[in-house]
Amino acid sequence: MTENPQWALSRREFRAQKRVHNFNPGPAALPLPVLKEIQEEFLDFHGSGMSITEISHRSSLFEETIDSAIARTRRLLGLSDEYHVLFFQGGASLQFCMVPMNLSLPGRPVDYINTGLWSTKAIREARIQGKEVRIIATSEDKKFSYLPTEYTVDGQASYVHFTSNNTIVGTQWQRFPDGHGVPLISDMSSDFMSRPIDVTPFGLIYAGAQKNIGPAGVAMVIIREDMLERVPDNLPTMLRYTTASNTKSLFNTPPTFAIYVIGLVLRWLEETIGGLEEMEKINKEKASLLYEVIDKSEIYQGIVEHGSRSTMNVTFRLPNEKLGQRFLDEAIRNGFHALKGHRSVGGCRASLYNAVTLDSVRTLVAFMREFEEKSIRG
Amino acid sequence: MTENPQWALSRREFRAQKRVHNFNPGPAALPLPVLKEIQEEFLDFHGSGMSITEISHRSSLFEETIDSAIARTRRLLGLSDEYHVLFFQGGASLQFCMVPMNLSLPGRPVDYINTGLWSTKAIREARIQGKEVRIIATSEDKKFSYLPTEYTVDGQASYVHFTSNNTIVGTQWQRFPDGHGVPLISDMSSDFMSRPIDVTPFGLIYAGAQKNIGPAGVAMVIIREDMLERVPDNLPTMLRYTTASNTKSLFNTPPTFAIYVIGLVLRWLEETIGGLEEMEKINKEKASLLYEVIDKSEIYQGIVEHGSRSTMNVTFRLPNEKLGQRFLDEAIRNGFHALKGHRSVGGCRASLYNAVTLDSVRTLVAFMREFEEKSIRG
Repeated sequence: MTENPQWALSRREFRAQKRVHNFNPGPAALPLPVLKEIQEEFLDFHGSGMSITEISHRSSLFEETIDSAIARTRRLLGLSDEYHVLFFQGGASLQFCMVPMNLSLPGRPVDYINTGLWSTKAIREARIQGKEVRIIATSEDKKFSYLPTEYTVDGQASYVHFTSNNTIVGTQWQRFPDGHGVPLISDMSSDFMSRPIDVTPFGLIYAGAQKNIGPAGVAMVIIREDMLERVPDNLPTMLRYTTASNTKSLFNTPPTFAIYVIGLVLRWLEETIGGLEEMEKINKEKASLLYEVIDKSEIYQGIVEHGSRSTMNVTFRLPNEKLGQRFLDEAIRNGFHALKGHRSVGGCRASLYNAVTLDSVRTLVAFMREFEEKSIRG
Repeated sequence: MTENPQWALSRREFRAQKRVHNFNPGPAALPLPVLKEIQEEFLDFHGSGMSITEISHRSSLFEETIDSAIARTRRLLGLSDEYHVLFFQGGASLQFCMVPMNLSLPGRPVDYINTGLWSTKAIREARIQGKEVRIIATSEDKKFSYLPTEYTVDGQASYVHFTSNNTIVGTQWQRFPDGHGVPLISDMSSDFMSRPIDVTPFGLIYAGAQKNIGPAGVAMVIIREDMLERVPDNLPTMLRYTTASNTKSLFNTPPTFAIYVIGLVLRWLEETIGGLEEMEKINKEKASLLYEVIDKSEIYQGIVEHGSRSTMNVTFRLPNEKLGQRFLDEAIRNGFHALKGHRSVGGCRASLYNAVTLDSVRTLVAFMREFEEKSIRG
């Protein structure tokens, strides 16, 4: 390492407040001002004399909390009244089974695009229920390292399901598949609220909170009114989308703390960042900085096709396992957390969700450049 | 009010730290030392440089967290290796549907004892699935104000389900129903970990955390090994008990924060309180103090039969609505939170879960005595 690297100051700062550069794939970094606010009011939520974890989900204080989170979601995504904003427990994994259970039409197939482990899991749940599943496109042939461009949607399909960002391999739809009128359904767990989207072709969007919008333990569901008409009467109460839409997600006790944190993160997104257009700019800048290092590097090699690259999860490999391990070891010693790739892919991955700062990425980039220089020189 | 009431000092103390006497029925009070510890380490969990909300559920730090919560549960309840300790999302309400889905035996009925709203909801979910439900006992005839003592269990039943404590009306089984060898299943949401229990007759125990052991957003399930053999293969992955038992509740991202808090609450229960025998003594003392005021009172009237009284939720009425409202208004002004009864019962309810201190109850009792004196005098 050189005497006075660019990233050393920032590293010292991070150490001073005992924080690392957190590139966790999820649960992931949360905005520091949000964490500080939670900490500050943790024993006395809005002058109630109780912690947010101790107040009733039927209290007006919590009602304001959940209403505000919903209103911010509506504004940030530009949702019309046609869409409901709902909160569920069970993560995206419970949605994998709820989607076909609630939204497949009798005698009609359900279409899936398979772009990785999470799509595969969603498909499995539809099959367990005996639905007629059609895989209309897959990138399994090249270990999901690209997004398929060829697929046909016919009007028979109940819906077309796809994963908007594939956390593990690091691909992301920059332009969504065209459903040709068939409702799109998307697992947006790992890029929800990271960029503006046009929701109109979507019948349903779901996202586990623990990447971009909050802590683990809650999933957000955006569902279009017409989808609710599909929900069969004979489903267990907790597994019907209509149960949540009829009760404003308060059929039973919701995960109050997680919803509260979502509200704070969305406020930060709206008021501090300035909305999804601004967030997207920052996210693109962060990803560009890293991809630039990778593209100009002799030792870092991108894992996915250029056109399919994700702004959320940047994946790369080093030329051999030994150097890769040295990179990861030095990264950890220098305060860069969770750069190890998913075990099914190997290599490295930097997850750059909304709360990961430009400064953290710049610091990482400086570290990567120096590591490369040193490893080539020495 | 008299000049210098007994409870005034305590009230001033509470005000000084901006805390109320929290009698919430759930989400409910948490132990203050636990809340303070969460607050203190919220930006830096165990020296990781991350918040507990930002660490990976696959990290060794979280593994220690969940393992410790499970180990404490085993010690506190004296569980043998036959029992698994699992975490689920979706609250007790999701368990209402998972229990019959996973544990009813083909061609065999499922037996339920109906002692209130929550039992009724559990029964409804079994019926939605088309199970042959037998209500072997009910106290609906007297608005659930007692626990039925007459019921017959025959060996045909898949299981016998009952609610151990009925939050809304305020009844609690002091001696559990006898299953005569048929596995008992109990929703213990509102008295779990409030007293020692003999788990051996139970096939499954479930409890939403938000009353005695943690924040909303997680339910604990204690399941006996032989029950897992009943789980059908064709259930959605997230709805099978075996999915959680095979993955130590880490099939997908669990509610990490909620599990962390449970761990802290159970540590408090084990190390500060001294275990379930000690907890039970304190809980009985708290309830006795209140029931004593009620039994000696000319204005407070208990709602449930003496033998069925709950140590967790003490319910009572005042002679008329006007006085009842005045009581509730003065209570709130004096820092006693959430004494209003459930809308289906009316009157008042003080929920005395583990984290509600003897001091809070003593203070309430002094307030109630003074209120009575004043209202009789005046």
